[in-house]
Amino acid sequence: MQFKISKELLEQIEQLIHQKNDQELAVLLNDLHHADIAEIFDELDIDEATYIFRILDSEITAEILPELEDDIREKILQGLSAKEIAEELDELDTDDAADIIAELSQSKKEEVISELEDVEHAKDIVDLLRYSEATAGGLMGKEMVKVNENWNVLTCVKEMRMQAEHVTRVHSIYVVDDENRLKGRLSLKDLLTTSTKTPISEVYIKKVDYVNVDTPNTEVARVMQKYDLEAIPVVDEMGRLVGRVTIDDIVDVIKEEADKDYQMAAGITQDVEAGDSVFEMIKARLPWLLIGMAIEIVASFVLKGNESAFDKYKTLIIFVPLLSATAGNIGVQASAIVVQGLANGSLKEFSSNYFKKELFVAMLSGTVISVFLLIFHSVVYQQYHVGIAISISMIVVILFAAMLGTLVPLFLHKNKIDPAIATGPFITTTNDVFGIMIYFAIARLILGF
Amino acid sequence: MQFKISKELLEQIEQLIHQKNDQELAVLLNDLHHADIAEIFDELDIDEATYIFRILDSEITAEILPELEDDIREKILQGLSAKEIAEELDELDTDDAADIIAELSQSKKEEVISELEDVEHAKDIVDLLRYSEATAGGLMGKEMVKVNENWNVLTCVKEMRMQAEHVTRVHSIYVVDDENRLKGRLSLKDLLTTSTKTPISEVYIKKVDYVNVDTPNTEVARVMQKYDLEAIPVVDEMGRLVGRVTIDDIVDVIKEEADKDYQMAAGITQDVEAGDSVFEMIKARLPWLLIGMAIEIVASFVLKGNESAFDKYKTLIIFVPLLSATAGNIGVQASAIVVQGLANGSLKEFSSNYFKKELFVAMLSGTVISVFLLIFHSVVYQQYHVGIAISISMIVVILFAAMLGTLVPLFLHKNKIDPAIATGPFITTTNDVFGIMIYFAIARLILGF
Repeated sequence: MQFKISKELLEQIEQLIHQKNDQELAVLLNDLHHADIAEIFDELDIDEATYIFRILDSEITAEILPELEDDIREKILQGLSAKEIAEELDELDTDDAADIIAELSQSKKEEVISELEDVEHAKDIVDLLRYSEATAGGLMGKEMVKVNENWNVLTCVKEMRMQAEHVTRVHSIYVVDDENRLKGRLSLKDLLTTSTKTPISEVYIKKVDYVNVDTPNTEVARVMQKYDLEAIPVVDEMGRLVGRVTIDDIVDVIKEEADKDYQMAAGITQDVEAGDSVFEMIKARLPWLLIGMAIEIVASFVLKGNESAFDKYKTLIIFVPLLSATAGNIGVQASAIVVQGLANGSLKEFSSNYFKKELFVAMLSGTVISVFLLIFHSVVYQQYHVGIAISISMIVVILFAAMLGTLVPLFLHKNKIDPAIATGPFITTTNDVFGIMIYFAIARLILGF
Repeated sequence: MQFKISKELLEQIEQLIHQKNDQELAVLLNDLHHADIAEIFDELDIDEATYIFRILDSEITAEILPELEDDIREKILQGLSAKEIAEELDELDTDDAADIIAELSQSKKEEVISELEDVEHAKDIVDLLRYSEATAGGLMGKEMVKVNENWNVLTCVKEMRMQAEHVTRVHSIYVVDDENRLKGRLSLKDLLTTSTKTPISEVYIKKVDYVNVDTPNTEVARVMQKYDLEAIPVVDEMGRLVGRVTIDDIVDVIKEEADKDYQMAAGITQDVEAGDSVFEMIKARLPWLLIGMAIEIVASFVLKGNESAFDKYKTLIIFVPLLSATAGNIGVQASAIVVQGLANGSLKEFSSNYFKKELFVAMLSGTVISVFLLIFHSVVYQQYHVGIAISISMIVVILFAAMLGTLVPLFLHKNKIDPAIATGPFITTTNDVFGIMIYFAIARLILGF
């Protein structure tokens, strides 16, 4: 099975909507996975999407909601009453339901909560609402299978059958004491292979990975990845089991983190997508362009201050773009390796060994580039002393760029600022300014202008 | 539980190794998770790591192997005989075992395979070796629970108990026909909640997501992410169930893809880490620096060709870095959005609507920047016609950069080349050359030099 949206399918759906042929629409769509229907919604206009939304079962539409793009979900929810939204949320897992409620306005939020039918479910959702989004508490759901350490396997299986009715996927069975404190876990495999008479306290595994409600989501992702976990229990300040985070939510966290770093490197301040509006695009991009411009105006003053060289050493000027680009490239390379090292834990703070290695790499690369450049300049322009001045400044500028590229992300990280900023336009333009400054200072020293 | 490597722990371990105090070492390490021991190995020198490796149980060491950095694993395996390696692999899941065997030399590979004790296991591993690494076949493992559609739940449970002994985690129970063709799946939840007398054919779910052995791993990742799957069955050309891919392997694929895109954007050709050698760093970085240099030499010729402007319009020259940086920044922004759009499927090919939007964004940003620049130039240098020339060229250069930034990744994607290259140094330096060309051409048209 491989679902692909085709133009034909979209046209067929649009036609059925215009004909108000609800029956055939339902037949057509009920056969699809909710993630596929969400993909179709992203392609339809909002009236068409809302129309379909109303004719589908709330079991299906509930699952569609979390899969939609934020702006489309917002518009669809605006068209629904509090009661209708509550009906959708009654079908959803607590974590997805809480995420959707969190997007509503304060007044609508309260209305929707009061309309929720299942009181236990409503309590769980309200409980989840108080955790900040970027923590384990914000990611976790309440659906899990837990058993008391004082039970035996038989009671346990009975209880589990009941609990499992409300849990879509059983990952692990958590064992708690009478105070609901997490004590350990039972694997499903153990359950399949152990006799039903064994007491729980004899079979459960006392070693269990867990996180706290306020553990940052990136840390939850790191732990789950490192230990290859598919679900991890979440405990509160007193060690009580309050929820679980599943790997599918963590996959989203990993994707988002990676996307954010990539966008940061590309000079985009906030999450934008190809489908976003012109205004959103400009809001995410123009600030960096303006910052870059402001910094490059400093570079223009540096060049202005060296105007005297324009007449005497024209080849000095024509290599400025080459110098800027090389400094920028080596600076970004250096930063990117540090940023990834900080992210995967292979680099924790300033290490003089690593710093020396980076400078050595820069030195070698710089030497290769400078020798090429010296030969090129000598052959083409024959002004040997100018060529030597350019080559020497080039090495120094490259070393400086590598140094800045290594130290800036480490400095940002130490000061709790996202080090990924260091691979963006801010650092390349700053490198430009310093590079041009150093270049002319050294050339002036050698050539005297 | 939160494990953190401390200097004290490392020193303690090193001391115990030097004292050859195997007993205490075993006590200390047996308490740790294998992923934590792997982290310790990465910090020790190779003799120390090999020493510890020999005193730990093969049950633990087998699990450590897949977690190690490639170079450390290679060195440890070099110190082991074929028989010793085979003992480790007998403990591992088929997919991990196959990955490790694939790294060995051809002769050692055969030796190790002949030493494997479990014949079924050996057959499975050999079977996995023939799939290419970047496909579902290369990712999949053979460990899974499968049942025949003709059985009833009772037979099924008995069979499953036996099969589950060899399977660390039971994700789903796959249903096959007599020819081993995938027919559907049984959820564990169904199993927990269904009476044992029901025939399988009545309870299994006929809708099942699957991939083919040759589906690219990024596509497997996309499907598993979209449908929130924790495992997906893999079928061969004839629809026969041959393995399953689990989400933890997919998390690695997603991470690697994201890292690769990020490194590509930073001008790093192959996967390098902070811990890699100077030689590896240079091999990954110098090629891009040299390509950038070669392209910027073209820029130097363009500047050389406009030397006549150096005397008459000095302010034209001093804004070249600003022009380059702005063109580069907007080009990278445009490319990054396209690259991410292609990756997440929101952009599939050239779309004139998207292209128009991007040009509109560039036009607006360009206008803001140009107006700022015109005011700045007028106030500081008072040469109004030069200021106007600079501003007009700036808009054109920005539009051009946005166009190139949008079209190049789409072109690369269409020609099956990784579009992420378009956010790297190649494109920024190319943008530089064209930018400087356009800038001087327009300035010459307006100012005439």
